[in-house]
Amino acid sequence: MTYCVAIKLNEGLVFCSDSRTNAGPDRVSTYSKLHRFSIHGDRQLMMVTAGNLATSQAVVAQIERDLKEDAEFNLRKASYVADIADYVGSLSLREQGKHRGGAVGGGFNAEATFILGGQIKGGDPELYMIYPEGNHITASEQYPFLQIGETKYGKPILDRIIRPATPHETAMRCALVSLDSTMRSNATVGPPIELLFYPTDSLSNTSHYYKFEENDPYLVKLRHSWDENIRRAFNELPPLSLVFGADI
Amino acid sequence: MTYCVAIKLNEGLVFCSDSRTNAGPDRVSTYSKLHRFSIHGDRQLMMVTAGNLATSQAVVAQIERDLKEDAEFNLRKASYVADIADYVGSLSLREQGKHRGGAVGGGFNAEATFILGGQIKGGDPELYMIYPEGNHITASEQYPFLQIGETKYGKPILDRIIRPATPHETAMRCALVSLDSTMRSNATVGPPIELLFYPTDSLSNTSHYYKFEENDPYLVKLRHSWDENIRRAFNELPPLSLVFGADI
Repeated sequence: MTYCVAIKLNEGLVFCSDSRTNAGPDRVSTYSKLHRFSIHGDRQLMMVTAGNLATSQAVVAQIERDLKEDAEFNLRKASYVADIADYVGSLSLREQGKHRGGAVGGGFNAEATFILGGQIKGGDPELYMIYPEGNHITASEQYPFLQIGETKYGKPILDRIIRPATPHETAMRCALVSLDSTMRSNATVGPPIELLFYPTDSLSNTSHYYKFEENDPYLVKLRHSWDENIRRAFNELPPLSLVFGADI
Repeated sequence: MTYCVAIKLNEGLVFCSDSRTNAGPDRVSTYSKLHRFSIHGDRQLMMVTAGNLATSQAVVAQIERDLKEDAEFNLRKASYVADIADYVGSLSLREQGKHRGGAVGGGFNAEATFILGGQIKGGDPELYMIYPEGNHITASEQYPFLQIGETKYGKPILDRIIRPATPHETAMRCALVSLDSTMRSNATVGPPIELLFYPTDSLSNTSHYYKFEENDPYLVKLRHSWDENIRRAFNELPPLSLVFGADI
């Protein structure tokens, strides 16, 4: 399993992803799921992936090959991030199609889901989730985040904290908390955690990026504080004696 | 959708359930999903349900009919709660079987899931989750709770707080918070919320029970406090400047 979240703030784009993949219980590995394509001063694109690892690796490889071979459409030629989202969707569909019918027995699933975000000079930053069917959606205005993979455990804190005007440090911290809650409740989501902030209009890859290993001191501190603070938050809730009386 | 949670404490059993059901977007209704069977001084059984409403209603109706008609096996005759879990499983399977093949087109699903808990005189309180396939599991020793329906949003807080030695007031409050987080993140889980505590060895139905309507003053207060306390808990986390330096 996987869990990735991307946030579209007024200040820029935040990406956060885990690195665990598995192909059965004895094949648990770590792979980076955060990919970056940079043309300094002109365009910056970030992508996180969930689902079939072969499909997502093939899509990333094809994007790079098209760039290198200067294909008819490639990241350098696109005028809009939305066009790149279409392109990723069609690469993904093509790759899934190759393996359809090749499965011996049930349970094989070549589907992959992507979140693509970035900015092309002259345009605004954009953020899209690309479904296995190849179509895509943007983040909502009110709750400007997108999630892929094991999304539910980590959603409540994003619902509470993330808005377009949220400062980037807050949003990055919230993404880490969301990842950490998910790792606690689901063993198939695991470190390292990658965290990246792309500031609007920077058009460079000198942005804030950090990879947190399992025992990273900040991550340990964050986890410990969050556990303690949540317990205190919970203990300070109004007691049920307000409903049931003193004899509860 | 539905969300129900049941907790097995040293002090007794806690049940908490929402009341929203839907059969398509224009048929959203409220039904109690918390059922109680009481034979004072001898046995107390509580059950929450998720899944197909027709199946779960038919199972509850058959349990009541078997009791009334003093069937060969009924709640009064069982020696163990586990035998009643088997019985609920077989009633559920029988009911689902009636409607198999009756579906016009895909998408019909007669499956239902149950959590059954209670105590029979001379035995300990027991808690079981009964799958649509009719088999059942108990709660784990370390994390003594079971959930059915839309379970993921509300699981992290249970993971953090609920242990066998947790006081019942704390566990009841935690169940409410878990329900409320779920309602916030999923519109198909909705009030009223029912909350019940069965104290070990009481063998009576004079236990703590409360139904919270949407605008119940305690629920509004709890929701408001939780939102405020979570924000404070979040704001007091170590800042990311510890990782990125002061220029973040």
